[in-house]
Amino acid sequence: MRAYLLGVGMTPFGRWTDVSLAELACRAARAALDDAGLDACDVRVAVVGNAVQGAIEGQHGIRGQLMLRGLEMTGIPVVNVENACASASTALHVATAYVASGLADIALAVGAEKMVTADRGRSLDAFEGSWDRADRNGTLRRLADFAAATPVPADAEAGAAHSVFMDVYAAFARDHMARYGTTVRQLAVVSAKNHAHSAANRNAQYRRQFTVEQILAARRVVWPFTVPMCSAVSDGAAAAVIASADAARGAGSSRAVGIRALELAHGGGWTGGHIDAHVSRRAAHRLWEQAAVGPRDVDVAEVHDATAIGEIQQIEHLGLVGPGEGGLAAEQGRTSIGGDIPVNPSGGLESRGHPIGATGLAQVFEIVTQLRGEAGSRQVHGARIAVAENGGGLIGLEEAAVSMIVLEAAS
Amino acid sequence: MRAYLLGVGMTPFGRWTDVSLAELACRAARAALDDAGLDACDVRVAVVGNAVQGAIEGQHGIRGQLMLRGLEMTGIPVVNVENACASASTALHVATAYVASGLADIALAVGAEKMVTADRGRSLDAFEGSWDRADRNGTLRRLADFAAATPVPADAEAGAAHSVFMDVYAAFARDHMARYGTTVRQLAVVSAKNHAHSAANRNAQYRRQFTVEQILAARRVVWPFTVPMCSAVSDGAAAAVIASADAARGAGSSRAVGIRALELAHGGGWTGGHIDAHVSRRAAHRLWEQAAVGPRDVDVAEVHDATAIGEIQQIEHLGLVGPGEGGLAAEQGRTSIGGDIPVNPSGGLESRGHPIGATGLAQVFEIVTQLRGEAGSRQVHGARIAVAENGGGLIGLEEAAVSMIVLEAAS
Repeated sequence: MRAYLLGVGMTPFGRWTDVSLAELACRAARAALDDAGLDACDVRVAVVGNAVQGAIEGQHGIRGQLMLRGLEMTGIPVVNVENACASASTALHVATAYVASGLADIALAVGAEKMVTADRGRSLDAFEGSWDRADRNGTLRRLADFAAATPVPADAEAGAAHSVFMDVYAAFARDHMARYGTTVRQLAVVSAKNHAHSAANRNAQYRRQFTVEQILAARRVVWPFTVPMCSAVSDGAAAAVIASADAARGAGSSRAVGIRALELAHGGGWTGGHIDAHVSRRAAHRLWEQAAVGPRDVDVAEVHDATAIGEIQQIEHLGLVGPGEGGLAAEQGRTSIGGDIPVNPSGGLESRGHPIGATGLAQVFEIVTQLRGEAGSRQVHGARIAVAENGGGLIGLEEAAVSMIVLEAAS
Repeated sequence: MRAYLLGVGMTPFGRWTDVSLAELACRAARAALDDAGLDACDVRVAVVGNAVQGAIEGQHGIRGQLMLRGLEMTGIPVVNVENACASASTALHVATAYVASGLADIALAVGAEKMVTADRGRSLDAFEGSWDRADRNGTLRRLADFAAATPVPADAEAGAAHSVFMDVYAAFARDHMARYGTTVRQLAVVSAKNHAHSAANRNAQYRRQFTVEQILAARRVVWPFTVPMCSAVSDGAAAAVIASADAARGAGSSRAVGIRALELAHGGGWTGGHIDAHVSRRAAHRLWEQAAVGPRDVDVAEVHDATAIGEIQQIEHLGLVGPGEGGLAAEQGRTSIGGDIPVNPSGGLESRGHPIGATGLAQVFEIVTQLRGEAGSRQVHGARIAVAENGGGLIGLEEAAVSMIVLEAAS
């Protein structure tokens, strides 16, 4: 893979009640272009990720063209992509394919989402109702099967109007606890660590620190999760400029970050209804092979902590820690900035925020910032190799999309 | 561009009330794989186009993963793309980029759409309401400006509950008539020709021939269009297998069709509100340059006749006939099978049907069938070079996406 990230940009994540999705997308795109030292007219293809504008705003078609009208990019291909919470990393994947193909020397990937509307209830309804509706009964049924094989603590709140996603993650957490002895306290430690990381991130939705005790005492979502252990409902946008080796040289940037490997995969039990529980692990195996480095070479990671258990699972799948060791690693401080394998220095989905169609590129924004040594007080010193993982959607108990990327600092 | 179409497949277009979108998509995909002599497990990336499932069925996320569950393709990337009526050709464009990049040697592009529901009214409402909502007032205002500069015949029906698309096409038609002397009769000739072509196409939604007089006398949609001059509301799916040169050789197929050039562009007046009326012409210019052949080399074409005027405009933009000559070319029989530049031998959107997220790949299905000499009684004899054009969405009066592809028969 010879492609480079020339520039990255993002809006702060949070509530942008009075700013349109288009304006958020343009702000992120302009920031990425400025960062790359390029103009909009230099872009040869734009790939735009969004997940819920159809459900929330009723704009189902040509979303990217409408979002990016504020930029002067007439004539180029605009490709609208969707892969649930992995929509932005899918945009990056497609944009990188265009660059690698030679069809474009400079590509713009954008992810943008507005989830918070004036009517908050409608926002959450639309989000939950839109998701995997055709499969939802199947998901819930298979979830029930899964949970039945797992010690399920009594939970008065389960089955209430929570997102099916939180229910599935809760089942994952209960399974992890039963199999590996992971504790609720460790989940709270992951959350406290991420909230502490984002205190220094001006792009984060939340910049408030919580003690482990505060997190344990917070309002419950579904056992074993309390609110600070779950990703937020957020607005925001993020973008990246991807360039060929020639274009990167031409731009003369000493800040270009190299793409060593990228993977996009889906699970979902397609093979005759069999649930493939290993899609992330298999993707990680191919990723490291492609990157010609291994998890021990990684200096910093951003992973998909839609809930605290998500971070624990994904750092295990990536091989950054051993199977079942994710919770302990957090408790030992290994995944904090200053530890041996810092995870989610941005604050992650739990605290930087999770505007779902933008998240994958926000992870890349953080990684690029770290690899350039520009992360200020949350800098992971000497970071040279980094990995980002972004998951999207559920089919049964499997991710419908999982994206992984290995990036390398300029030499 | 060294990429090949190894296989194509489609369902008949029409009304599939009792068949799910997923089943339609799988049927088309399986047909394309069978045609290529491949299995689903040979596919390295799947790119899936769909436009209105969110609006009509409430399935907003991970549509392709859910559609293709019937195939055994666990693990590969699935990319969901949308570009309104050009969604399927956008899927082909992205799939071809993956093949050209080396990230995949064999790619599957699928387009699928269900627009006809048991509640027909809801189908049309959803279709119209979903489209370019954010820009709709602007579109109508600019349409009014446009129409005001054009002799607008009295039209009692304009402004009624027709699709904004038909209104825009009607304005295009009135402008073409005023500028070039194109006649309503010529529009009817285009429609009659396409309906005659599809009489022999078992995949067509309509296989009934109409005389020019019958078409002129049919129920009016918006002046100057009657129903047979407008594309249908349709269900259906189409698919193609794209392969690298090595993979095409490996498959040992003598029926592979070469991709000589492909373009994807958008207009939409992005440059400071200026309407760029030439996006299709500029895309065509780049297309022929890339293909190293010209419009005079084309033996057969499929173009986006969402209405009869669409065909006339697009064959002019492609340079297949001179500016303003599209209507006359139809009247002289030049665009019929047997003429010097047969257009829409499948019957086009007007008669083969227009399940919008599937149309671009149905055009490619027809072209590949023609270039293989397998089109039976509607075969264009000796067809070696062909072009397909597929447009999608409107921003103001410009296409949000226009896709063009030049294909070449195996030598």
